[in-house]
Amino acid sequence: MSPAKTVKDYIRTIVDFPHEGILFRDVTTLFADPRGFRMCVDQLLAPYVGVRIDKVVGLEARGFILGGAVAHQLSTGFVPIRKKGKLPGQTISQAYTLEYGEAVVEVHEDSMQPGETVLLVDDLLATGGTAEAGIKLIERLGARVAGCAFVVDLPDLGGRKRLETMGMDVHALCAFEGL
Amino acid sequence: MSPAKTVKDYIRTIVDFPHEGILFRDVTTLFADPRGFRMCVDQLLAPYVGVRIDKVVGLEARGFILGGAVAHQLSTGFVPIRKKGKLPGQTISQAYTLEYGEAVVEVHEDSMQPGETVLLVDDLLATGGTAEAGIKLIERLGARVAGCAFVVDLPDLGGRKRLETMGMDVHALCAFEGL
Repeated sequence: MSPAKTVKDYIRTIVDFPHEGILFRDVTTLFADPRGFRMCVDQLLAPYVGVRIDKVVGLEARGFILGGAVAHQLSTGFVPIRKKGKLPGQTISQAYTLEYGEAVVEVHEDSMQPGETVLLVDDLLATGGTAEAGIKLIERLGARVAGCAFVVDLPDLGGRKRLETMGMDVHALCAFEGL
Repeated sequence: MSPAKTVKDYIRTIVDFPHEGILFRDVTTLFADPRGFRMCVDQLLAPYVGVRIDKVVGLEARGFILGGAVAHQLSTGFVPIRKKGKLPGQTISQAYTLEYGEAVVEVHEDSMQPGETVLLVDDLLATGGTAEAGIKLIERLGARVAGCAFVVDLPDLGGRKRLETMGMDVHALCAFEGL
């Protein structure tokens, strides 16, 4: 009998996407497989079973796929953090630095209440810039981040250290070394 | 006892978004509520319980939230249909007409197999342009669309008729009259 496939085994690496020199870790092959997707969702939320979670927050766009599934499984509400200009209601926004330039993410200002406990979900932790901006938005609304759950960690890009320095609990299902 | 809230009751209307004269039907208030989100996911997939569904396909970006939850509940894989340039692997693409100009959506060419049965999910059915492009992509890969499930139908924009003319089974949880 061959050993059972892990979450990492379902992830495909695409060379030179979105530009030359990048190894893109593609989770769509994981999500497209029924066993892979279920294993991924189960493992993402496993540390938080029995923990009070009021809302699952997903980062646009792949974090929406995971966040929707995790929120449904935990029977919580789901809140999207989106790129600037996509949310129709009153928002608060947070800028963060990219390799070249700056980006802005937003959240509806009435999407979380002070004192609520939130699980932040995304597919991949790289530099942690987007996640940090998301955490700041959540905390500015008075909610508390119980954990940050990712499918993939790229430890050489420093995101885990960055979030742990903020006092975050970081949970990732697998890691790829190198850039 | 007051009557139970319906899916429609959780949806908020934002006036003049994204531009003047538009009544934007905002499902984020539905998704943020634990009871609303679960009711929405349960009702979306209810007609397809007992039907063979191999993959749930979600349209970017709000269709990812619903599609992830529906795929998880049905224990199927999830496949994203994305805007041009977002998917890292080999794709096929389909153009469709917008009010002003044209847009293109893409799917990974290996994301569905010939003969597979697919449930297409999105938050809102307006003119049906994006959904029609999505259906064409699915059918070009040799898969079959078992149904198209939406939270909101805007019947005055003609999307339901357009999809039904293609032979589609269209399922929507609520409708808003007017534009």
